[in-house]
Amino acid sequence: MKEAPYLALEARFHRLGALREAGRVLQWDRATMMPEGGAVARAEQLATLKVMGHELLTDAALPDLLAAAESDNTLDDWQRANLREMRRQWRHATALPSDLVAALSKASSACEMAWRRARPADDFAAILPDLARLLDLVREVAAAKAAQLGKSPYEALLDAYEPDGSTAEIDRLFDRLAAILPDLIDDALAHQQAMPAEIPPGPFPIATQRAAGLRLMAALGFDFAHGRLDVSLHPFCGGTPDDVRITTRYDEADFTRALMAVLHETGHALYERGLPASWRRQPVGAARGMSLHESQSLLVEMQVCRSREFLAFAAPLLRASFGGDGAAWGADNLHRLYTRVQRSLIRVDADEVTYPAHVILRYRLERAMIAGTLDPASLPQAWREGMQALVGIAPPDDRNGCLQDVHWYDGAWGYFPTYTLGAMTAAQLFDTAKHADPAIVSGVARGEFAPLLQWLRTNVHAHASRYTTVELIARATGRPLDAAVFEAHLRARYLA
Amino acid sequence: MKEAPYLALEARFHRLGALREAGRVLQWDRATMMPEGGAVARAEQLATLKVMGHELLTDAALPDLLAAAESDNTLDDWQRANLREMRRQWRHATALPSDLVAALSKASSACEMAWRRARPADDFAAILPDLARLLDLVREVAAAKAAQLGKSPYEALLDAYEPDGSTAEIDRLFDRLAAILPDLIDDALAHQQAMPAEIPPGPFPIATQRAAGLRLMAALGFDFAHGRLDVSLHPFCGGTPDDVRITTRYDEADFTRALMAVLHETGHALYERGLPASWRRQPVGAARGMSLHESQSLLVEMQVCRSREFLAFAAPLLRASFGGDGAAWGADNLHRLYTRVQRSLIRVDADEVTYPAHVILRYRLERAMIAGTLDPASLPQAWREGMQALVGIAPPDDRNGCLQDVHWYDGAWGYFPTYTLGAMTAAQLFDTAKHADPAIVSGVARGEFAPLLQWLRTNVHAHASRYTTVELIARATGRPLDAAVFEAHLRARYLA
Repeated sequence: MKEAPYLALEARFHRLGALREAGRVLQWDRATMMPEGGAVARAEQLATLKVMGHELLTDAALPDLLAAAESDNTLDDWQRANLREMRRQWRHATALPSDLVAALSKASSACEMAWRRARPADDFAAILPDLARLLDLVREVAAAKAAQLGKSPYEALLDAYEPDGSTAEIDRLFDRLAAILPDLIDDALAHQQAMPAEIPPGPFPIATQRAAGLRLMAALGFDFAHGRLDVSLHPFCGGTPDDVRITTRYDEADFTRALMAVLHETGHALYERGLPASWRRQPVGAARGMSLHESQSLLVEMQVCRSREFLAFAAPLLRASFGGDGAAWGADNLHRLYTRVQRSLIRVDADEVTYPAHVILRYRLERAMIAGTLDPASLPQAWREGMQALVGIAPPDDRNGCLQDVHWYDGAWGYFPTYTLGAMTAAQLFDTAKHADPAIVSGVARGEFAPLLQWLRTNVHAHASRYTTVELIARATGRPLDAAVFEAHLRARYLA
Repeated sequence: MKEAPYLALEARFHRLGALREAGRVLQWDRATMMPEGGAVARAEQLATLKVMGHELLTDAALPDLLAAAESDNTLDDWQRANLREMRRQWRHATALPSDLVAALSKASSACEMAWRRARPADDFAAILPDLARLLDLVREVAAAKAAQLGKSPYEALLDAYEPDGSTAEIDRLFDRLAAILPDLIDDALAHQQAMPAEIPPGPFPIATQRAAGLRLMAALGFDFAHGRLDVSLHPFCGGTPDDVRITTRYDEADFTRALMAVLHETGHALYERGLPASWRRQPVGAARGMSLHESQSLLVEMQVCRSREFLAFAAPLLRASFGGDGAAWGADNLHRLYTRVQRSLIRVDADEVTYPAHVILRYRLERAMIAGTLDPASLPQAWREGMQALVGIAPPDDRNGCLQDVHWYDGAWGYFPTYTLGAMTAAQLFDTAKHADPAIVSGVARGEFAPLLQWLRTNVHAHASRYTTVELIARATGRPLDAAVFEAHLRARYLA
């Protein structure tokens, strides 16, 4: 009898979870299969699923059910964690008055549409009114959620992507990185001077690139009975834990980027697939948050697949696949290619060493804009100064500056820090894993990834959202997230 | 003010329509893209969408809204027709107590699963208990719907596929066909003796077959900005009017079946695409029913694409596509191939002349089983006798007899007559169209299908569900559906 409110909640969130899964498949289809003429109808379908999901979350019966379940002492740890995540979703859904939700949705769409024109036209002035209007609404949202969640306004936004994320923690980690990165970038650039890298001669037929990607996905443990690889404009990992859909995009003149995108998304996919089947479609059964999700893709991409060991395994396979020949196909050259450092203007093209500098810039700027201490009219100037200080290069225009990422123009504020939190988490998890089981690194060199996957399954994937991110990292690695581990990884790879 | 209840209904049915569209995309994905391991989660997603749609239809507010809207004299014809279709959907949804819905769903799944084993094992005895249990429930459903809809039990089942379908009308049409078909089949077989047909030599690479199919789809007017062609185990037309997804399956040894399946599904697709955009996701905006839908696929396949004129246009294209040579690639030979008549056991492989005999058999048997005058235990014997009488050949086993079609074992009773109603409707529509505009037939021979599509758009597609099927046929052709037109078509094609 006592469990009744909790079980009623599970039934409601199961339904919500199934609606969200349906939406994720429709989103995947939109990006990979849908003819362009289907866009308007698809938007209707997705909006309907979203509104009906929102209605489930804001149903008048939920507050009493949540309160009753929270006073139930018979629940086990997983059930209590599930309830905590239900409460979080309920808080986010009910924090905002419906007119603010509608205004935000409208302003985001308008600003995103304007951004599509403003970016290629390099016209920040044209988008500034839309951006300012959207920022006003986002700050209103942040204030409302802050009151409901008991957090600071920025943390209230962050919480949607990084549950329980803390700015004090991010500042501690990012300040340390920002302090060491300028010198580290200088040193890495100097270090690689003596090590030229050569792109193997192409062309690289798409079918061959795809086959090589599938081969390496399978080696890493991707289960094709529960997933697919397709093509989209921007690589992503979509679908559901039982049917994980990853994508890449191919360039017949250069196989290296498409291949690494496949491996990156495979890391995301392995996380989704490793979530506990017994908690499917329940809040606690979902991936923990964006930083942990990114840690899984970056662990596979950066820690494993750009390593000398992995490339020793992959180089002969790639050479044979493409029928290549010569030193350009050697593991040494491929490793140099895949660890090239460069001061560049565009975040998504950045290498492992400079990437955090791009992210720290965005984090600091968006915090200032949410706090009201940076006027969006001053964004281009602040961007150029920040790039010069952090990356050591400043953009000649806004197209390659503050207009390059869709996030702010689409209403996604508080997302950026998760990229670099993920990179640091990846380094710390892999550092622990390789010491815990020596078969992990030796396996990578032989193309045997079962020991690594086993460690990730046990220490990360299987926990889903049972713990907070901070708790999960502490349990898995024995200590809080520490920038020093990431720093040591960079020094070992780029300066040794 | 007076329109308020009607507009409230439109908003509710719009939501229902969007949910159904989402479901149709997920079903397409299941048949074409989904890895097998995704099946259980997909079933959850589809069941959730279905249950939530059912809840929208059975909402307690609907009876008052429907009654209020029905007494609103300010509605125009389309709105009144929309309301009539809303009422129909409401009647179907509320006719059954929820325990009967659940029992039916369970029995259908169990019987369908048993059928998957029983058919290859040729074991009717093994499936008889499941079939008998399912039939009992279907008869219960028919009785409950009959009371709600004011129809006979069989017509109440038929109404779900063929709205307002009438057994008196079907009997009138089918009895006429049954009377003439045995002699017509004899005569057609005798007539074609002197006209051997030769399958062009293969193999036929799938990529080439696909390209040829796309070429002919485009010629017929398929809009690839609003649709796709893919592969599935059984060809079908899915998706939504703004994003029509058709499928086929390929055999590298024989291109003829895959190609004709593509053209058949293109007919379905043109109908969906031609539905009025202003009534999207409203009941009146949907295709009228299964017989009219089948009329559009059969008009394209049987009336147009198996004609001498079409094959004169297509033969050189096909020959060039496959790099073929010789008389086998001539229009004469392809026309003989595509109009071959044969007494055969399997409905889905049957030709245009014998197909109606297969359907009439099933219609008579299912009516008798619903009426309780045929015990399912006697089905195999009744099947053999009926096949001998109607097609002139009897199956040596049940696998090629009463176990061949999934319909009854899956709970789809009252569906079969729509195939042959569709064939007759196709003949009558095309007969009217080609007399109305001489450019239609001359265009077919030149690969110009715009006049035909224009006629279908205006006389069939644009009306969606505004009229009943009987009204639509009378308006389009000037007379009720008449078996004599179909008969004349068969005599002209197969005996002249």
